[in-house]
Amino acid sequence: MTPKRKVEGHNMAQSYSIGLDYGTNSVRAVVVDCSDGSIIGSAVVNYPSGHQGILLDPTDHNLARQNPADYLYGLEHAVAGALEEAAEHTDFDRSKIVGIGVDSTGSSPLPVDGNNRALSMTPDFRDNLAAMCWLWKDHTSWREAEEFTRIAQKERPEYLDICGGTYSSEWWWAKIWHCKNVAPDVFDAAASWVELADWVPSVLAGRSKPSEVVRGVCAAGHKGLYNPAWGGLPAAEFLAKLDPALADLRERLYDTAYDLDTPAGALSAEWAERLGLPEGIAIAIGAFDNHYGSIGCGIQEGALVKVIGTSTCDCAIVSPENNPGTIPGVCGIVEGSILPGVYGIEAGQSAVGDLFKWWVEGICQGDGALHGTLTDEAAKLAPGQSGLLALDWNNGNRTVLVDQRLTGVILGQTLHTSRAEIYRALIEATAFGARVILERLRECGTRVDTIIAAGGIAEKNPMLMQIYADVMQTPIRVSTSQQTCALGAAIGAAFVGGPHSSLDDAVAAMTSLRDTTYTPDPARAAIYDKLFALYRQVHDAFGGVTQAADLSRVMKDLIDLKTATAQDAPSRSMEVA
Amino acid sequence: MTPKRKVEGHNMAQSYSIGLDYGTNSVRAVVVDCSDGSIIGSAVVNYPSGHQGILLDPTDHNLARQNPADYLYGLEHAVAGALEEAAEHTDFDRSKIVGIGVDSTGSSPLPVDGNNRALSMTPDFRDNLAAMCWLWKDHTSWREAEEFTRIAQKERPEYLDICGGTYSSEWWWAKIWHCKNVAPDVFDAAASWVELADWVPSVLAGRSKPSEVVRGVCAAGHKGLYNPAWGGLPAAEFLAKLDPALADLRERLYDTAYDLDTPAGALSAEWAERLGLPEGIAIAIGAFDNHYGSIGCGIQEGALVKVIGTSTCDCAIVSPENNPGTIPGVCGIVEGSILPGVYGIEAGQSAVGDLFKWWVEGICQGDGALHGTLTDEAAKLAPGQSGLLALDWNNGNRTVLVDQRLTGVILGQTLHTSRAEIYRALIEATAFGARVILERLRECGTRVDTIIAAGGIAEKNPMLMQIYADVMQTPIRVSTSQQTCALGAAIGAAFVGGPHSSLDDAVAAMTSLRDTTYTPDPARAAIYDKLFALYRQVHDAFGGVTQAADLSRVMKDLIDLKTATAQDAPSRSMEVA
Repeated sequence: MTPKRKVEGHNMAQSYSIGLDYGTNSVRAVVVDCSDGSIIGSAVVNYPSGHQGILLDPTDHNLARQNPADYLYGLEHAVAGALEEAAEHTDFDRSKIVGIGVDSTGSSPLPVDGNNRALSMTPDFRDNLAAMCWLWKDHTSWREAEEFTRIAQKERPEYLDICGGTYSSEWWWAKIWHCKNVAPDVFDAAASWVELADWVPSVLAGRSKPSEVVRGVCAAGHKGLYNPAWGGLPAAEFLAKLDPALADLRERLYDTAYDLDTPAGALSAEWAERLGLPEGIAIAIGAFDNHYGSIGCGIQEGALVKVIGTSTCDCAIVSPENNPGTIPGVCGIVEGSILPGVYGIEAGQSAVGDLFKWWVEGICQGDGALHGTLTDEAAKLAPGQSGLLALDWNNGNRTVLVDQRLTGVILGQTLHTSRAEIYRALIEATAFGARVILERLRECGTRVDTIIAAGGIAEKNPMLMQIYADVMQTPIRVSTSQQTCALGAAIGAAFVGGPHSSLDDAVAAMTSLRDTTYTPDPARAAIYDKLFALYRQVHDAFGGVTQAADLSRVMKDLIDLKTATAQDAPSRSMEVA
Repeated sequence: MTPKRKVEGHNMAQSYSIGLDYGTNSVRAVVVDCSDGSIIGSAVVNYPSGHQGILLDPTDHNLARQNPADYLYGLEHAVAGALEEAAEHTDFDRSKIVGIGVDSTGSSPLPVDGNNRALSMTPDFRDNLAAMCWLWKDHTSWREAEEFTRIAQKERPEYLDICGGTYSSEWWWAKIWHCKNVAPDVFDAAASWVELADWVPSVLAGRSKPSEVVRGVCAAGHKGLYNPAWGGLPAAEFLAKLDPALADLRERLYDTAYDLDTPAGALSAEWAERLGLPEGIAIAIGAFDNHYGSIGCGIQEGALVKVIGTSTCDCAIVSPENNPGTIPGVCGIVEGSILPGVYGIEAGQSAVGDLFKWWVEGICQGDGALHGTLTDEAAKLAPGQSGLLALDWNNGNRTVLVDQRLTGVILGQTLHTSRAEIYRALIEATAFGARVILERLRECGTRVDTIIAAGGIAEKNPMLMQIYADVMQTPIRVSTSQQTCALGAAIGAAFVGGPHSSLDDAVAAMTSLRDTTYTPDPARAAIYDKLFALYRQVHDAFGGVTQAADLSRVMKDLIDLKTATAQDAPSRSMEVA
């Protein structure tokens, strides 16, 4: 049931692997050269269902589901598109593909029937929202998450230690429990539940029973509270305190979850034919996008990887001797969740690109060009010059407050406050949020000397990157690859497919960083220290960290900073490419 | 020096008076029929200098000055325009004009030379910003205002009792003191300082010495801390503690200030000729726009007059036996400042229409039509449905915190928050701000049974008026006149000009209310009670009322309200014309 990795000594120069990255709105497939990580073929397929691929409920903005049929549709078409592009390379041939790796959003669990079919793809549940995949940003289960936290605090506080002290409504157990509460027919019909990141590999491997699905430790550990130290998933007697039905479900889940050393399976004959790929090639273990993304960025101890997109995911690794045990408010510390043998740490911010998009498209009703215009105007401002301060909570707070029921704040406005000033304040808010995470990691002993950024925003917005460097007072490098998640999945596939003798070798060969380093500017950093202190005050007051906040100076301190910076603003605004 | 009111028994049916309303961007003149208050001629002249009539300093957003030459230019052209329109009425003849009344913004002091000429109109100070009129919304003197408050708290706490406990940077002494500090040459050259509301009448009356200017008790009492109980203006020994130069200046100001019973003078031959009006007609005492505006609304005890424009001014009157003495945070309680023999109470909000304009024009970059579109969308929302809460402080807080260095807040945003939702939240914020004032007045024993609204917004936005009624839980009537300030000044002129036997008769004859009453809706009011409690929490935390605020529930309570109202939102949205 747990196939071992092939080590057959492929000719690396003639090996290729496929990475599949299941994002929020679309799936991307890449064909990657195993010798240097170059992407020779790529295709994106939008999920056809719902609004931009997401099934919504107009009466409940917390609901976000996806149609599992879209995943299989996207799989076929994205792989076909990537192969078509790769075929233009003279050296390439489909027979040289040695493996497939899959990453996805998460926690995005879906109920399956006894044949490992998505329940929503069976006749009885075809249009049932509860039978779909519960997308990571579905927050309908916030009550269950609060209750889970409350009960765990009392019964099993150690469960909360590995997930930052609070169980989130974005996660596995809360979602499944909510399904039990609001759609018991779906819950009862589910033979088991599978994370999207595990389900696609299991489909490719032809797993026709849920019990045969090879589960990745990434999703299991970070969202399912799987931990070998307490015997796998949370104890049945604990789950029974939430709901006896969850204790029953535990039996139909899994006992062991695996890291990258264990492949998820081998490509089935059926899918080999549908995709036009060699039968039996290795399928890497499924993992979350940011985890594979951090591999695609060349993660190593001392480097914090930030994949900055609609939201931001942070990943770090620590060797066992540096394992912090618990980091309050940080989503998870799981052995093997990124690289085998080391602890993977995951944190994140719920809205980053989405926040800027909300401002530009939702409020200013502009398009992509307005992002550029506002960035140009915002770049002329010095830190503190706008007198504004914002909280980046329009989609809740994932780290370190772990509270989806927090909302956005903009403060410091006058009658002269401009769009561009608010745009910059929102960028700064995400930078301050990033600094909260960084400080928390460091406080708990995780070494961070440098930041490796990836994702669309990291590539396209040097102003934002410089603000992040100035606020976080840490140098930032940017990954060369524009598809680090898909690349990471392909690296995993290259590793299990055999051409590299070790994962370290594969990562070293297949990843690289750009030449540019964003270096903190001491003058700007000094002002940001003051602004961050104010951010922290407002953050703690509304976030419930402080129950007796003194905010009486916040607005005045902002005005003082504004006045102080007005004189020499030009010298403190930045010059960026 | 203090001419008495004429009572000569004019034929009222054939009497007219002129009201002049000096606003922030323009001056309006009206010709009014003394028998019924109907406006038979009206003209508006924009001030030609600066940006929309305001002289700005790009390096200091606190600075707002006006060119006194604009006032005289506007005087001639506005009166000419109003007379031209009036001339189309068959009964009208210029010889039937019995008086002129002037109102203006304030505190808007200007330095004058020994001939009562505006210092900026003399060769040496022609382009000197400090020699101009210091417009009400000039906040450059915030440091002096804080210092004034500090010293008065220690030395003469009774001075602060009549101005709400805090001296404002918008007011007389702070501005003049700041001039002394930053432009001592201007200060030294000034023979005296005169409020705009007194200066225009003094020019019309041909006063060629500052000592001859008849000062109105409205500006003197509300902004200059004039009070007969302590012998007029603040004592020289107190002023010397601020700056000995201010104690010297006191000698060159005035000993007595007057209410409406005393005219400011009679029209000089020179100005009679320039304006084409009968020489010697009465000039009513100058007063602030909102005070004359409340007369134009038919103010009476038990009615709170709200003039809602770019900002909002609140006026109430109480008879001497109900004099509250002091109302913390309320700008002033001055005998005779509105009507002779009763105490006038003034409060206000620094940004109302300006706040909506900032959102629509500054952020959404829309025009007047967008106000309509957003209003239509916002009207469909139920209270609480947006999950938003805002503070209406984009231009500071005039009442009850009296703090210009407070700024705006919007909170509760998600990634779905719309322009219209924020537009409504800003309207609600001003309504909550209005309720804070109302509650403070009532706490201190001022009876308010009904609200009389006037101003452009009161006339044009029934949705806003209904929100105000629901939030303040008090019925609201709207003044018939669209020019209550200018009308009030004309009523004052009609009174001193003679045709009415008493001011009460003049007000009764010349004012009226529209038929519509905005009546509070109990269901909406109940939700607004909850939202107001949250507003108050955030207001007190950032406003410095509370130094140990617990804001940890604010965002969640907003979400709970949002969830609770989502179901029956349609029934709680309003139907307005």
